[in-house]
Amino acid sequence: MFTLFRRFRFVVVLTCFYQTLREWVAVESDSSDVSKRPELHHMMNLTADKLRSLGGKVEMVDIGLQELPDGKSIPLPKVVTAQFGEDPSKHTVCIYGHVDVQPAKKEDGWATEPYNLTDINGNLYGRGASDNKAPVLAWIHTVEAYKLPVNVKFLIEGMEETGSNGLEAMIIAQRDTFFLDVDYIIISDCGWLSRRPALTYGTRGNCYFFAEVEGPKQDLHSGVYGGTVIEPMTDLIGILDTLISPSGKILIPGIREAVAPFSDEEWKMYQDIEFDMENYKEKLGVKDLMYNNKVDLLAHRWRYPTVSIHGIEGAFSASGSKTVIPAKVTGKFSIRQVPNMDPATVKKQVTEYLHSVFAKRKSPNSLKVTMIIGAKPWLADTQHSLYEAGKEAIKKVFQVEPDLIREGGTIPVARTFQDVTEKSIIMLPIGGFDDGLHSQNEKMSRYNYIEGTKLFIAYLHEVAQIKKV
Amino acid sequence: MFTLFRRFRFVVVLTCFYQTLREWVAVESDSSDVSKRPELHHMMNLTADKLRSLGGKVEMVDIGLQELPDGKSIPLPKVVTAQFGEDPSKHTVCIYGHVDVQPAKKEDGWATEPYNLTDINGNLYGRGASDNKAPVLAWIHTVEAYKLPVNVKFLIEGMEETGSNGLEAMIIAQRDTFFLDVDYIIISDCGWLSRRPALTYGTRGNCYFFAEVEGPKQDLHSGVYGGTVIEPMTDLIGILDTLISPSGKILIPGIREAVAPFSDEEWKMYQDIEFDMENYKEKLGVKDLMYNNKVDLLAHRWRYPTVSIHGIEGAFSASGSKTVIPAKVTGKFSIRQVPNMDPATVKKQVTEYLHSVFAKRKSPNSLKVTMIIGAKPWLADTQHSLYEAGKEAIKKVFQVEPDLIREGGTIPVARTFQDVTEKSIIMLPIGGFDDGLHSQNEKMSRYNYIEGTKLFIAYLHEVAQIKKV
Repeated sequence: MFTLFRRFRFVVVLTCFYQTLREWVAVESDSSDVSKRPELHHMMNLTADKLRSLGGKVEMVDIGLQELPDGKSIPLPKVVTAQFGEDPSKHTVCIYGHVDVQPAKKEDGWATEPYNLTDINGNLYGRGASDNKAPVLAWIHTVEAYKLPVNVKFLIEGMEETGSNGLEAMIIAQRDTFFLDVDYIIISDCGWLSRRPALTYGTRGNCYFFAEVEGPKQDLHSGVYGGTVIEPMTDLIGILDTLISPSGKILIPGIREAVAPFSDEEWKMYQDIEFDMENYKEKLGVKDLMYNNKVDLLAHRWRYPTVSIHGIEGAFSASGSKTVIPAKVTGKFSIRQVPNMDPATVKKQVTEYLHSVFAKRKSPNSLKVTMIIGAKPWLADTQHSLYEAGKEAIKKVFQVEPDLIREGGTIPVARTFQDVTEKSIIMLPIGGFDDGLHSQNEKMSRYNYIEGTKLFIAYLHEVAQIKKV
Repeated sequence: MFTLFRRFRFVVVLTCFYQTLREWVAVESDSSDVSKRPELHHMMNLTADKLRSLGGKVEMVDIGLQELPDGKSIPLPKVVTAQFGEDPSKHTVCIYGHVDVQPAKKEDGWATEPYNLTDINGNLYGRGASDNKAPVLAWIHTVEAYKLPVNVKFLIEGMEETGSNGLEAMIIAQRDTFFLDVDYIIISDCGWLSRRPALTYGTRGNCYFFAEVEGPKQDLHSGVYGGTVIEPMTDLIGILDTLISPSGKILIPGIREAVAPFSDEEWKMYQDIEFDMENYKEKLGVKDLMYNNKVDLLAHRWRYPTVSIHGIEGAFSASGSKTVIPAKVTGKFSIRQVPNMDPATVKKQVTEYLHSVFAKRKSPNSLKVTMIIGAKPWLADTQHSLYEAGKEAIKKVFQVEPDLIREGGTIPVARTFQDVTEKSIIMLPIGGFDDGLHSQNEKMSRYNYIEGTKLFIAYLHEVAQIKKV
């Protein structure tokens, strides 16, 4: 394998892997928190500088404004595009990635400071390490270490964690310019299922809802006023409790009926996947899983919808006690989308259902239901030459056949790329199965970071072999 | 009235009313937040210094340690006692107050900085202004301005807002020393019902519960893991939803059955109270109240129990969106206590009920129910000479008959004083009906602060007239 790239240069690049990731993780590029917006803009600049320093033709694309709930607007982080090589006889791949992150605070239960990359036994702990800063850097290191056999473009955004606001319009606008000569799109914003490397051919979408119940005009003392007002929190708990049964059955009418049937072929394919139920259970630290056989469990992880209630804004959430009747509370929940669900339909189903449930309570409070993210699922053809190239590259670097898997999470842009550009897309993950995306103690292992970079190099080599049509 | 006290000296004292309250409000003496403990200790020292500067015999009583949920212990704030006068031919009153406060953050929706006392149109806005720093200062100003016709003792604590931890043991320990010569105990830790001054003869108690549901060993990404685990948040929402019906009926077996029956005399007494339903509704900003007649509404405010769900710790509570499955969530709710409920029984009823509801869900997660506050209600005899003195003093200062009211909130120490010292107790409020205790924009009006001080002076004068037995 090492003959594929310049060994000496690769070793030099390796020595600065850690340092660059450390610099990137130190930037608190949390796209969900408007107060962190300057950090996010800084992150986009860092990305552009890095690509420019390697000789890329870099642009920072203005994608407009983000409208805030209070009616104000603030600039969205610019999208960074870059181009390396313009040889028309070669394939052109476009690497998609993002450099924004989920929120993280030490007091959420992190063992280390989330924005201070910390190396413990070969694992690099830090918010955004695996999702998605190290994979983006691994692609950048690929360009740095390797004489490219294909033209490489980059499209790096900063709003992925909150629904890729503004990106779809940008992709539509540049369909016939930036994307015109692109043959394939590669996304490395996911992880393996086990220690066996994987190729990902599907993701779930996500519809994220706010259910806001508003009552008194301000918070009230529960001793002084308790018993005289219908409390918004009681109403909200009441309606959230009608979303899902104790055993995980979605109770919103119409949701389950829309899901594509589970075929026999699919069942067989799931049977073949390497997946250790006991290990999964142990890793999560739960007594029992939602399903006790591999096929049901993976199917409900990848190809069935699910409801998660994330939390409540406006209620008391600190440690200790507070005797408050919160005046306005917003329940936050999301429904993962799978073929053949449609976010617009789901929005209508959820809104109507919650209003009907709320109406039955005869509460004097008011309910407002908003869908703030509506991302579709994505599904690829595993027989496509892009996937064949992936299987070859994995065999060369890791000496194993990859698992063909789907992803329970959402990469909203995958579906957008498919619908708008009509290019073929592959997801080529290098994140570990236990990287802790979106939770405390997110990490990227040195092994995955470095072997992942080798995989990217090998993959471009395989893609270069695909016959030009 | 002004003949009762030294007019000149009173005017001098008035000029520093605002400044002292401002200094006291600036101390973030939040007893529920362990990280604020140094501020709380500082607040107790300030209080002691102030009383000492007026010639009081001051002691700072060590009441031991507070055990934290993680097993560690930290010192409780000392209790400040003071004594002014020791003439055995005079009555001795003991003033109880507290100088700790509820949590407050600007971003909760305060119009001003909560710990920066701000005067707007004669209202002094700040956390703790009304609950209970200004009333404590009004008593201190009384001692400062007035040649006392009775002996006055002070007992000022710093843990009231979290259940007066450590105080009961201190009262028991000093029953035959500090309390030996005390005739009456006066508490001014509540407010009027309307613009008409009031005397308070009862309070509700409070049982505060944590219901902790724990599942996976850490937070999980809802895309990656949603559908494979039974989420603690779903379980918690499910059990919280069984506490109370949409119309406010408590669903925990045994709670409603324990409540003392509502007598005809009581009904008539409630009928006579000045209370404007429309004004109350408008003040709270709600479309409808829990009950649409005065007697039912006041009865459910004062003499029936109620359940309030305050919030959830451990779930996502910030603005924006986060696709997380929280691993451990703690629901916080409280049940207001009235005669003849018993906190120990309520604890058993709630714990057994929640565990039985949880068991039906057959969840692999674990539930832990803890009662962290268990404060009893308190009820006084309105025919007692202490109340007659109160009626006289109010007539002299305000030229009206007071309302005889109860308080929906809890002053845990009232019941403790009653049970341990067997002294007679009166609640003599000076807070306004719209002071916003425990909520955003808490305030004390200059009018109530100053006229309240006059009331205290007049009240001591009346108490001095009570015949010594």
